[in-house]
Amino acid sequence: MDKIPILKMGHFLLVTIQVDMHDRLAMTLQDDLTSRVVKDRAKGVLIDISSLEIVDSFIGRMLANIAAMTRTLGAESVVVGMQPAVAITIVELGMSLHNVRTALNVDKGMALLIAQLNGLAEDDGNEPNPE
Amino acid sequence: MDKIPILKMGHFLLVTIQVDMHDRLAMTLQDDLTSRVVKDRAKGVLIDISSLEIVDSFIGRMLANIAAMTRTLGAESVVVGMQPAVAITIVELGMSLHNVRTALNVDKGMALLIAQLNGLAEDDGNEPNPE
Repeated sequence: MDKIPILKMGHFLLVTIQVDMHDRLAMTLQDDLTSRVVKDRAKGVLIDISSLEIVDSFIGRMLANIAAMTRTLGAESVVVGMQPAVAITIVELGMSLHNVRTALNVDKGMALLIAQLNGLAEDDGNEPNPE
Repeated sequence: MDKIPILKMGHFLLVTIQVDMHDRLAMTLQDDLTSRVVKDRAKGVLIDISSLEIVDSFIGRMLANIAAMTRTLGAESVVVGMQPAVAITIVELGMSLHNVRTALNVDKGMALLIAQLNGLAEDDGNEPNPE
């Protein structure tokens, strides 16, 4: 396992993190994800961490990096499916995830991205439909 | 890693197989998936195997089993993202996947499921979709 698959769903990309992340895998994911955002002209990225029982500072930093990178490319990212224990750890460790949006599950994360796309389109002027 | 996460997306469930399947993991996946189909009243199941470079008879049988089980529960399943090399192996090994629907990617798989749902809803009597 040397690659985490990135699935395209409409305008969005979905990544499910199932395995223990190590340095090289995290770098590969960042590279792949930013390439795919550009290639697929993705408007948003969903990162599912529902199978992670521990999020340490390394994974936290990776999630923050991915959020910053995709945002720089014009795509928002949402971390979905965080387990309650992970949320507790993140707060107790004082990890800074303030730039990372979260949602309860994929459905809600996608709704968040769609709402934001529509919001951005409305604020732009008179364009109700994104694209 | 003793569980493969099952993501709910609207009426459908999505499973991304990233790790090597062994007996117990396959059994857990079958149990979890059938439970979730019932619990979430899912209309379809998408199984992404894009990160699998080898599909042996064990995985083939598991995919066929999952297709049969979910169909019994009233939900169709589609295997998506199969790599070309895997398709070659499946044919060369003479593996029987004739009950398993496939699609190129998640988007197309979801379109297939939606088309089938609409088809079923429109004409319950004469079946326009070949099985």
